[in-house]
Order: sequence, then structure tokens, then C-alpha cells
Amino acid sequence: MDVHDFSAHAATGKLAALARTPHDLTADGGLTPQRVGTMRMSFCGFDLLYATQRITPEVLDALQELADEAGLIAACTAMQQGAVLNRIEGYASENRQVLHTACRDLFDQPPMAPEASAKARRELDKLRTFLDELASGAIVNAQGQPFTTMVQVGIGGSDLGPRALYMALKAYALPGRCARFIANVDPDDAAEVLSGLDLSRTLFNVVSKSGTTLETLTNERLVRARIAEAGLDPARHLVAVTGEGGPMDDAGKYLRSFYMEDYIGGRYSSTSMVGLVTLGFVLGFEAVTDILRGAHEVDRAALKPDIRANLPLLLALLGIWNHNFLGHATVAVLPYSQALSRFPAHLQQCDMESNGKSVTRQGKAVGWKTGPVVWGEPGTNGQHAFYQLIHQGTEVVPAEFIGFRHSQYGLDLQVAGTGSQQKLVANMLAQSLALALGKQDDNPARCFPGNRPNAVLIADRLTPRTMGALLAIYEHRIAFQGFCWNINSFDQEGVQLGKVLATRLLDLLAARTPPEGADTLEMSVLRQAGIG
Amino acid sequence: MDVHDFSAHAATGKLAALARTPHDLTADGGLTPQRVGTMRMSFCGFDLLYATQRITPEVLDALQELADEAGLIAACTAMQQGAVLNRIEGYASENRQVLHTACRDLFDQPPMAPEASAKARRELDKLRTFLDELASGAIVNAQGQPFTTMVQVGIGGSDLGPRALYMALKAYALPGRCARFIANVDPDDAAEVLSGLDLSRTLFNVVSKSGTTLETLTNERLVRARIAEAGLDPARHLVAVTGEGGPMDDAGKYLRSFYMEDYIGGRYSSTSMVGLVTLGFVLGFEAVTDILRGAHEVDRAALKPDIRANLPLLLALLGIWNHNFLGHATVAVLPYSQALSRFPAHLQQCDMESNGKSVTRQGKAVGWKTGPVVWGEPGTNGQHAFYQLIHQGTEVVPAEFIGFRHSQYGLDLQVAGTGSQQKLVANMLAQSLALALGKQDDNPARCFPGNRPNAVLIADRLTPRTMGALLAIYEHRIAFQGFCWNINSFDQEGVQLGKVLATRLLDLLAARTPPEGADTLEMSVLRQAGIG
Repeated sequence: MDVHDFSAHAATGKLAALARTPHDLTADGGLTPQRVGTMRMSFCGFDLLYATQRITPEVLDALQELADEAGLIAACTAMQQGAVLNRIEGYASENRQVLHTACRDLFDQPPMAPEASAKARRELDKLRTFLDELASGAIVNAQGQPFTTMVQVGIGGSDLGPRALYMALKAYALPGRCARFIANVDPDDAAEVLSGLDLSRTLFNVVSKSGTTLETLTNERLVRARIAEAGLDPARHLVAVTGEGGPMDDAGKYLRSFYMEDYIGGRYSSTSMVGLVTLGFVLGFEAVTDILRGAHEVDRAALKPDIRANLPLLLALLGIWNHNFLGHATVAVLPYSQALSRFPAHLQQCDMESNGKSVTRQGKAVGWKTGPVVWGEPGTNGQHAFYQLIHQGTEVVPAEFIGFRHSQYGLDLQVAGTGSQQKLVANMLAQSLALALGKQDDNPARCFPGNRPNAVLIADRLTPRTMGALLAIYEHRIAFQGFCWNINSFDQEGVQLGKVLATRLLDLLAARTPPEGADTLEMSVLRQAGIG
Repeated sequence: MDVHDFSAHAATGKLAALARTPHDLTADGGLTPQRVGTMRMSFCGFDLLYATQRITPEVLDALQELADEAGLIAACTAMQQGAVLNRIEGYASENRQVLHTACRDLFDQPPMAPEASAKARRELDKLRTFLDELASGAIVNAQGQPFTTMVQVGIGGSDLGPRALYMALKAYALPGRCARFIANVDPDDAAEVLSGLDLSRTLFNVVSKSGTTLETLTNERLVRARIAEAGLDPARHLVAVTGEGGPMDDAGKYLRSFYMEDYIGGRYSSTSMVGLVTLGFVLGFEAVTDILRGAHEVDRAALKPDIRANLPLLLALLGIWNHNFLGHATVAVLPYSQALSRFPAHLQQCDMESNGKSVTRQGKAVGWKTGPVVWGEPGTNGQHAFYQLIHQGTEVVPAEFIGFRHSQYGLDLQVAGTGSQQKLVANMLAQSLALALGKQDDNPARCFPGNRPNAVLIADRLTPRTMGALLAIYEHRIAFQGFCWNINSFDQEGVQLGKVLATRLLDLLAARTPPEGADTLEMSVLRQAGIG
């Protein structure tokens, strides 16, 4: 057996043994003030409370041993230094470096991957110039008016992360600036966004690394047609974020082009130009720098080998404990912050596309569970919805709570002696305790089994800097888990088959492939669906 | 053993045996044109394609037997006739009827629960009068201007369903009318919504059955304060949807009050005044009637005993096959329609709050799995995100696709011989096939195991009537599953413990309870979270 394999580590045997009698949080003394004070970490502006996990010091020791055996810190270091980690040994693969961290390695000398950071700096300088020109009036529309709206046209990694960050931070928008997003090939998506816009004051930011993404090209065409219909010049209203030298790198068609490198995967690209152009347009250059600074601090702190001092590493290992050893199929990310309403959707992509794999980095079938299903919605809303199942259902759902001590707008109201923000945080902490402790009752329908593992992440306020840190915490949690499972977290071969079949169906619909005499499966499906 | 218990039915034994060798969709002849043509149903405007489930005719026969043994049609009939199904025998419970179907039983004579339908008709007449007065100018603001925006203030069932339906149908909005929603106790939620409004042209629709929901009361106070600060009269800008005679039923404080009955659970209340007031404001009374008509047609068709002719019943049983017999912990609902972007969140609530239970209707611990985790995001977006895991991950995720042959806005663009809507639907069908069929490849990272069960629901266009039908299809799927698992799908005892603990923490924060000398768990958590 390959020594890298997850199941080959001595620690996994220990953990499997420990998992036979996991810590009982509902027992007398199972969750004490002392435990809460001990199982806690401060890290880059966040505090992590993890006493409500089903762990003991022995479990933590075994998780530390697993981290050491699996070489997780060495892998993270290698990644940040530019090792070619996006590969499957012995087989065709993307065969690339993984350097999203280089985009933000701009605050310490020397950077860990100097060439990539120099490229990131160059794009950032271009962005600063662009934003300055927008601010000074050097870039205006045909009537000499400033632009007010940027519509990002992208999908997947070019959409979810930037959208989540925009929603998280729009409380800090520059006066008169906002963003919208078009992603879906569904024509109603673009129609709905375009119906509310003053096109003359709008910039469209078309984002596609390859310059060949079907949805994005279709939506770009649609947008160009609408701009032209409105008597405007598309080249004056579109900017591009794409690979240098690719099909979209065309100065004649775009007001400005920014570059993304192929060593930054879509789902890890929010802190590259993929996210920063739109965020910069809305929030300004200083906020963009703060996002990068927050992420960079985490990148460096993620290199600490002690799991009790490295928040993303500990989160990764607790996730592995819950998934591989306690057998829970999903993980819920539950932000107590309406501004983070789309952050779970971004994590769902980042995590499930990274770790939803079944072969090792050596191309062998895995013999252990890899990534869980990741889902979530903001609290307190969720408390009035799916929390019923996480308290009393037959599926146990490990939960990660995220909260802040202060609100963004500061528009708070005292009712019954406490403010709304206090109610919000108190509810989050109460849920954490309730899931862990459970409750006995004479009425069986009012019993709560407890022992539902969870952790709380809390910071002072959701700002550009904390947002950058939070993003990086999760990026590293995901990468650490992938390293530990010995999978390639940076490819996405699983998206190909659907593309191939979709092309086949579209060829049939376009009648470019003459329907054969035989009744094919594809023809049958189209006909039975009523679109053949 | 109680004869109602899920595990006591003879059919569950048969299904368990059949599940040892589930149908192999990847085998030669495993998925043929004939199979696609046979495993298909038309129902109330929707077609269901289910050849891509891991079932045989024998499995369908056993599922039919289960439906019959468990008395699912009798239970659905009893529900619609007003039986007291929201109860746990022998224990304190809500002890109520379950009559959301009565709200829409207005199109056939006689209705199945005449008294409840008469009440629904009365409220609907009040709504028509209100909408007529808004249209005629009888209701205007202090400056004599018409209202343009309705902000719904509610949470959980008073938010997710109405919000999902509004987003689904806003393509049909009356000119100049729109809606917004405030749900979270997070003060930034209200702040963000209020920051973009002209308060003088805005109505606030405060929705709370009990009139005591913490989040809603807090947000109502906040809204009233802002209206008063703007020099406006709150009583002229607020309407209420609440229980008759409850604390919010106060003509002096609201422009108009609409009533909801306690036999309609929050998560089933979208077709009561909880959803219809805001939907009526935006879409007009005719659209509201169409939503009700679409739902009602499904309510009646859901009473057919043949699972091959009853779409919600078959969906329910296929879900049970995948969850209880094939062992899959989650189900993904994947609409290929951006307008349905929040429909999965509504279903997540409706399903998980209904069926996330661990005791039978007789108060015994269940010995079988009840509700799965429900999640999902629109395609094609998801294809660029979490689909990697559903194709190649180690968790198998049963999927329910929802699509439409035509777009809402009709703003479509031909690229490469097909329109955007064709691309959208072709992608959906391709994903269904790809998940079922899989693919072998010499490169192990490019292998797809296939046999990932899924089904496709498709209708002509997302209209008020199809939306009503879709909503009711899922409501009945959920209720059928609950009946089959012999649980009470209509209570939500699991939300109580968190409320109790939150109150305890808030009392500590408000210092209304003097901190004791001993270091309590609650004090410790507050202190360690940095808010004590």
C-alpha cells in the first residue's frame, strides 16, 4: 500500500478505535466551563470554540499525529511555493501549480512564490490605474457620465466567490456604486438583471479563464447585442478578465483586460482579478488591499504545525473526524450574518468541486470517504427552517457556525434589554449548546438526543479584512482535507462527461447530426422530454 | 409492533431484498429508449422522466405495495378532509388539523373541507378588495401617490416560500410593482433592504401567525421607527397577516389585516395569506388565482392510488427507495431555471422541518431513517460547482431536476444553432444521462461510476399556474413520505430547545439574571465568545 494513503497512516487506526466510544457531550461533566475555556483558539482575528465537538484530548493528539504523518504542513508549504500539485501521477492531468496564495503574498518579503506574486502585483497595479481613472473621470460613458454599475458575467468560480464577497461587503460600497451578476445560460437570468439597468452607466466585466465557457460566451453575446440595440458601443462598456493571449484577450473588443493565470483554479480565484475587478469597482482599491491582507495573514498562519494553533488545520481535521470516523455524510456551514448569505454556496463549490473525488494522487481508487456534501443558510433564518432536522432528525449534521460581535451598518435596536446583534449572536451560541447538550423530556417528541458536533467561529465585525481571512481559512481547510485524503483537490474531471453529452444533445437539436434510423437513447430522452 | 410502523410493512422486507442488487443503469441494456419511454408520467402540466432511477418493475410493484399497506392515499384524503393529523398519540402536541389544501379548494364543488375553504374564500375576497383599492387609487400614500413596493417582514415559513414564489414569478410583475423581504434578526438584513427604499411609496407586510415571533417583532419595531423618523404614519404603511384575535390583530396599528388559521403550518402556508398578500400586490389577483388553481389540481390528482399515475406519490416512494433502501443521506433539488433559485431553500425548510423527526405518531423511537438532508442550487450554475462531487465523489446524491421548455422573458439568443433555453434544457437532460450512465476511461481520474439515481420534472413554462402545481407536488411528496415513515410531519418541537437557551443567554446579557458566583456553562460560552 502506498505510504501516502489515508488508511495507511497509523493515526487512522487510532482514530477508528477512539471513534467507537466518542466523547459524550450529554453526560454529566461532558461539557463544562473548563472545557469551553480550553478547547478554544484565537487566530487572525477569529476565535474558534470547539468544545462542542465529540472529541477528547486523545482524539486531538491522534489528529495531530495524522496531520504529521500525512505531511499536511509540508504540502501546504509546497503549494504556496509553487509545487506542481494539480496532477495525477502517471496519467494525463492539468499538471499545474496551485498558486492562489501568491495573489495575496504581497505584504512580506520575500514572497513564497516570487514570480507569481510579481504577476499578481502587475495586475493589481493595472486595477489601481483603472479604478483611479474611473474616479478621476478619465473613464466615463459617451455622455461623459461616470459608471455606476458593474455586471460580472461569469459562472462557477467566476461567479460564486465574487458574488459571495460582494454581498458580504456591499455595506462598504463607494457612494453610487453597485454590482450585479449574470451566470446562468438560462436566458431569464440575463433578462432579469438587464431589465433593471441603465445600460449607459453600466460596465460589464466578462470573466472566463479559457475564453471558451459556453454560458459566459452566450451571455456576453446577449449583452453586446443589448448594448448595441441601445445605440451604445460595446467596446466602451465591456472589460475582460481572462488568460493572457487567449481568445478573449482582444484590446479592440474590451475597454480593459485583466489577466488570470492557469495556476489559479476557478474556485480559488476570488482574490485574483476574477474577484478583485468587480470588488474594486464597488469597494475601492483600499478595501481590495484589505481583503488580500486578511487572506495573506491566514496563508502564513496556516503553516503552523500545531493543530491547536492552526485554525484551518484543526477545522480540516475535525471535519475528517466527523466524516470518516463518526460517519456523517454532510457538513452545514451556518453564518449568523445575512451578509454571508451566499458564502455557503461559494464553499459548497469550493469544497465539493475540490474534494468530491474517488482516486488518489497516484490514480488508485480510494478506499475511504472523501469530501462530504456541504450546505447551509444564514441563521437565525435557518432556525425557523431546517434546524428541526439537525436537532431531532435521524441524520446527524456536523455544523460550523460563523458570527460577528458587531453589525456592519450599526443600525441596531434595543428590544427587551438587548440589541438585535446580541440576539443574533446569543442565538448562534444557544444553538451550538443545544445541539451538543440535547435535553431529556417525558414527552418523547420533546426529547433532543444532543451529541451533534459543531464549532463556532467568531470575529469582531465582517470587514474586507475579516472576509479575506475567512475565505482563506476555508480554502486551507479544504486543501488540508484533500492532502490528508491523498486526492487532487485542484482538478475537476467530473464536469466533462455532462459537457460531452450536452453537446451531443445540442447537435441533435440543431439537426447538425442527422437523426439515425435507430432510436437512440439521446433522441428518446429529447422526445420524452418534449423538446425533440 | 404497531401495524403502522414503517418497518412492519411486508413491502419493506421485499424492498430490502431488492435493494441488495439494485438495477444497474451502466450495464448493457440498463438504460434503453424503451425504458425511457415507459418510465415516464404526465401529471398536471409536468412530465416526470424516471428511467434514470435504480429501479425495476418489481421495485415499482413493491413501492406500490408499500403505498397501499401504509395507507398513503387514505392519509392524504383524511388530511384534505380535515382530520387531526398534527398530533402524537398519548402526548401533548399541537393537536391540529392540517388544511393548507383547503386554501386552494375553491374550484370544485363541494370542497373537501368546506368550513376551511369558506374561511380561505373570505380572506381571498378581502385581498381582492385591497388590491382593487390599490389599483383604483383608493389606497395611496399621504401625498396621494400609489405604493410601488411591498416589503414582507417574516421568517421561516413566513419568508422562504413567499420569497421563492416571488422570485419565480417576478417576470410577471405588474408595471411599477416589486417586493422585498426582511427576515433575519441580523440588523444588517433590515438595514440593507431599507437603505434602497423610498419609504413613502412602500408598504410593509408583517407576517406572524402567533404575533410573537422574536425576529419579526424586532424587525417590525425597527421598521416602524424608520417610518416615523421619515415623518410618515406607520399605521398607513403597515399591513398584517396574523391569527385572528391575536396580539397583532389591531386595526389601529395596521392599514389592513389578513388572517391565517392555526391549521396551516408555516412551511405549508405559501398559498394562504402568508404568501398571497405580497404575491397579489406584485402580480395581481388573477395570478394569485392561477397559483391556487395549479396547486388545487395537484391536490386532487394526488389522491390517485396508482403510483404510476400520481407524481408526488411516486416521487415520495422513489425518495424512500433511495434513502431507506439504497442508503443515500441527502437529496439534491436542481432547478434548471434561475427564477427557481430559492425554491430549493423553501423545499429544504418544508422537507427537513416536516420529516426531520425521530419519533412515530405513537411517540415511539423510530427504527428507520426519516427525512434526508435536502439541498440544491440552479443549473447550469451548479455544473460549474458541486456537480464534480455528484459525478465522482464518494457520497451518492440522488438528484431531482426541474426544467421548462420555454423561458419566461423570451429574451433568447441563437448561438451555434441553438437557443439559450435549448442549451439549458439539453444540459439538464445530459446531466441526468451522465449521472446514470457513467463512463469508463483508461485514465482513472476520468472514470465516472454512473448509477447515480435521478429524475427529471419538466413543464412548458414557469407560470403562476405551473408554480402552484410544482409547490403542491413537493408538499405532497413530503407529506406522503411522512405518512409512510409514520411520523408527524406537521409539528416542529425541535426548534424549542434553542429558543429556551437563547433566552437564557439573552437574560444574562441583559443582566436581568444576576450572574451567579459559580461559573456556569452559559457564562463561560459568552465570555469565551467575547460577548459576555
